[in-house]
Amino acid sequence: MDEACLRELSKIFAQDQLLTNLSDLHSYSYDASFGTYLPNAVVQVKNVDEVSAVLKLANRYRVPVYPRGQGTSLSGGPLPVKGGIVMDLSQWKQKLEIYPDDLVAIVSPGVLTSEINKAAEKYGLMYPPDPSSSHVSTIGGNLAENSGGPKGLKYGVTKDYVLGLEVVTPEGEFIRTGGRTIKNVTGYDLTKLIVGSEGTLGVITKAFLKLIPKPPTTQTMMAVFDDLVISGKAISKVLTSGILPAKIELMDRSSIIAVENYRPLGLPVEAEAILLIQLDGHEETLNKEIEETNRIVREVGARETVIPGSREEADQLWQARKLVSPAIVTLKPTKVSEDVAVPRSKIPDMIDRLNRIKEKYNIHLVVFGHAGDGNLHPNIICDQRDTEEMIQVEQAVSEIFNAAIELGGTLSGEHGIGTMKSPFMEEELGSITLDMMRRIKTAWDPNHILNPGKIFPEPDQNSLVLRDG
Amino acid sequence: MDEACLRELSKIFAQDQLLTNLSDLHSYSYDASFGTYLPNAVVQVKNVDEVSAVLKLANRYRVPVYPRGQGTSLSGGPLPVKGGIVMDLSQWKQKLEIYPDDLVAIVSPGVLTSEINKAAEKYGLMYPPDPSSSHVSTIGGNLAENSGGPKGLKYGVTKDYVLGLEVVTPEGEFIRTGGRTIKNVTGYDLTKLIVGSEGTLGVITKAFLKLIPKPPTTQTMMAVFDDLVISGKAISKVLTSGILPAKIELMDRSSIIAVENYRPLGLPVEAEAILLIQLDGHEETLNKEIEETNRIVREVGARETVIPGSREEADQLWQARKLVSPAIVTLKPTKVSEDVAVPRSKIPDMIDRLNRIKEKYNIHLVVFGHAGDGNLHPNIICDQRDTEEMIQVEQAVSEIFNAAIELGGTLSGEHGIGTMKSPFMEEELGSITLDMMRRIKTAWDPNHILNPGKIFPEPDQNSLVLRDG
Repeated sequence: MDEACLRELSKIFAQDQLLTNLSDLHSYSYDASFGTYLPNAVVQVKNVDEVSAVLKLANRYRVPVYPRGQGTSLSGGPLPVKGGIVMDLSQWKQKLEIYPDDLVAIVSPGVLTSEINKAAEKYGLMYPPDPSSSHVSTIGGNLAENSGGPKGLKYGVTKDYVLGLEVVTPEGEFIRTGGRTIKNVTGYDLTKLIVGSEGTLGVITKAFLKLIPKPPTTQTMMAVFDDLVISGKAISKVLTSGILPAKIELMDRSSIIAVENYRPLGLPVEAEAILLIQLDGHEETLNKEIEETNRIVREVGARETVIPGSREEADQLWQARKLVSPAIVTLKPTKVSEDVAVPRSKIPDMIDRLNRIKEKYNIHLVVFGHAGDGNLHPNIICDQRDTEEMIQVEQAVSEIFNAAIELGGTLSGEHGIGTMKSPFMEEELGSITLDMMRRIKTAWDPNHILNPGKIFPEPDQNSLVLRDG
Repeated sequence: MDEACLRELSKIFAQDQLLTNLSDLHSYSYDASFGTYLPNAVVQVKNVDEVSAVLKLANRYRVPVYPRGQGTSLSGGPLPVKGGIVMDLSQWKQKLEIYPDDLVAIVSPGVLTSEINKAAEKYGLMYPPDPSSSHVSTIGGNLAENSGGPKGLKYGVTKDYVLGLEVVTPEGEFIRTGGRTIKNVTGYDLTKLIVGSEGTLGVITKAFLKLIPKPPTTQTMMAVFDDLVISGKAISKVLTSGILPAKIELMDRSSIIAVENYRPLGLPVEAEAILLIQLDGHEETLNKEIEETNRIVREVGARETVIPGSREEADQLWQARKLVSPAIVTLKPTKVSEDVAVPRSKIPDMIDRLNRIKEKYNIHLVVFGHAGDGNLHPNIICDQRDTEEMIQVEQAVSEIFNAAIELGGTLSGEHGIGTMKSPFMEEELGSITLDMMRRIKTAWDPNHILNPGKIFPEPDQNSLVLRDG
């Protein structure tokens, strides 16, 4: 990066907002995915003028800029893969306003996602998107990646709750998209284009989010299975019965054992799979629906069902699901976290394919995820230092993607493409669709300075997990 | 249009698919908005190859192409404003497949929207978007315009139910966007960009739609008010009570009287406003919610509430709402149909502003619409031949738009911009946001052949209703 550019940055930012020493740069060199890439500078922005100034400067000097929240991305979203400036928005968290009469929240990009729901609950309202990281990830990051979560089954994902945005374009211009109304068809839907564009089309500086009434109560059930594929069939059966649970989460045997070893919660360690189901709504309806769900899953082949008698017991089951990720990383140092989604009816087929891939490559494959909406997280536990193992892993990952695409599914349900999955984009989308996406990128960011190296495959890029920045 | 282009068209299409005689061209020269514009030719396409061939030809000859469904647009979406070729997709209705296990429907562009819901209901499922024209409008048109409807309040609009598309680009290339999965974050969201782009970014040839379980039962209520503004307050109060009705529709005094004169249904003609409310869900919950709704609207000031005792009585109330449009056009020949949306809390303010505009310009203003989601349809009944009256109308419309924007609202909730509202785009969006939209259009359609003259204001365009093509 040009020295002159750095000098200009230091004129815009106070000393404590511009970080250039090596230890600071190191802490911005990685996220929750693979690879480390050192930036030349980090700026901690707190207002639109600062964002705009950095982007205008970056265009003048042709220096890449990488927007970043709390760095919890599983796909490499904020990694500074080509050097340049990391724009840290996590310190910009001043605004979190709830307008109960409009059922709207207005937030700064650095607000933690779980804080929004907490604030909404005071008014009997809810902000449904609940990525597992919601207590540490920022809404800005969630917006950039269009984060999902277990409640996606009933309530949809981040994008479904964004009414409008304030954005600084790649060239540093301020725009507003959408607004505070529920309906809006005034021109192209830039809001939904920018949400999920992984920070490549603009820097989000404010968001107008839709809230909904919080359902009065919830009811949880655990269903225990001796066969993973049968658990997938139970999901399909429930979903076509007219009942729409808020969540249906799957944990396979490896996940159950990993969690029990990590923190004993009394899970059925001899089972092949459990489903954790949450229904929400009015109490009288839930009582009927939980009975019906119980009947359906047993009919399909659940060995046992458990309906917790208290809120605490229910919470404990949901805690087990949250512990899968921390638990499995204690087994081996490296976790390759996948995120395929398939049509709901293909869940049993996908599970079957995963079983076969696990055997074929002799890998430690753990399967869990938001199975109710067809979004599975097959995780491969391995050791990045073991090159031979990693070659097997690489091939297995490739085969997982192919299986998902063959079943009519997609590479990524909620983690994004980032650096991790860009080599597979053309296979799923075809070259023309990819070109139509590139045309938008080039029209908005002619100098390609905003978050380069993400989404679109780079000419030399073909390995997923063996790279090291 | 070039003779050579027409000759080439006649090589692609059988005689009965290519219309060029004047009486045929006349029937494609208008829609449900203003102005008539004669095309040079009409092609009735029935497959992707035909769509692609027309667009490639059009690019070679620089001839405009206008995709068209059943022509029910209220904003001028399919009007051939610059001559050229109308591409009629209403005959392409061969595919309507329901996949109950995936909760997905796959449809051709010419399928009537109400047919989709009818097919889904056979499996206990529902396709929620319900524009008033759903029994005559095509899904292709609904997708292009992102149509809404009364159920938008609880269930959202067309865009919320589109998982994926097959599209022919403006240059005649075939692409797929999204897919059959509920979650998908693989690259930019072209699906939601194309839905609502009013046929300017591509021709939709197939759609993958999301279905949901049909709620077991519904319950209707009519609330009668002596004050229009109070009815608006009642809406806000219900929506912040934790109850989310499927529909809350408003009819003001003029609408009530017009319907009663058109077909006597026993509506309260001396009332200033009625709200028609529909709740849906499980019976036991509905019984509680309808009581609570009754209590709330009476507390706010409803003079009377009516809860129909039978399905037939309920249907009759909903029929009254459907009759507003046909009823008011019997009063005077011209109906200027507006479509503003405001944040929910501003519904009473917007109603108040409409009252004042009505008095100021001495116009016959009828107010009805999907007030529950802030989307009002102020309709001005007038006579296009009366130039003096139309000048008043023009100014009133302008003031209605300004009021909506001042209240944090938008020009169009569900009808689209088309030719009707493009002059107001820059006022709402600002020049930079409009430019970012234009960049997408130009990147995708460099020759500007696909549905020109829509959304983006033309240099000479400043009148809404006084133009005549």
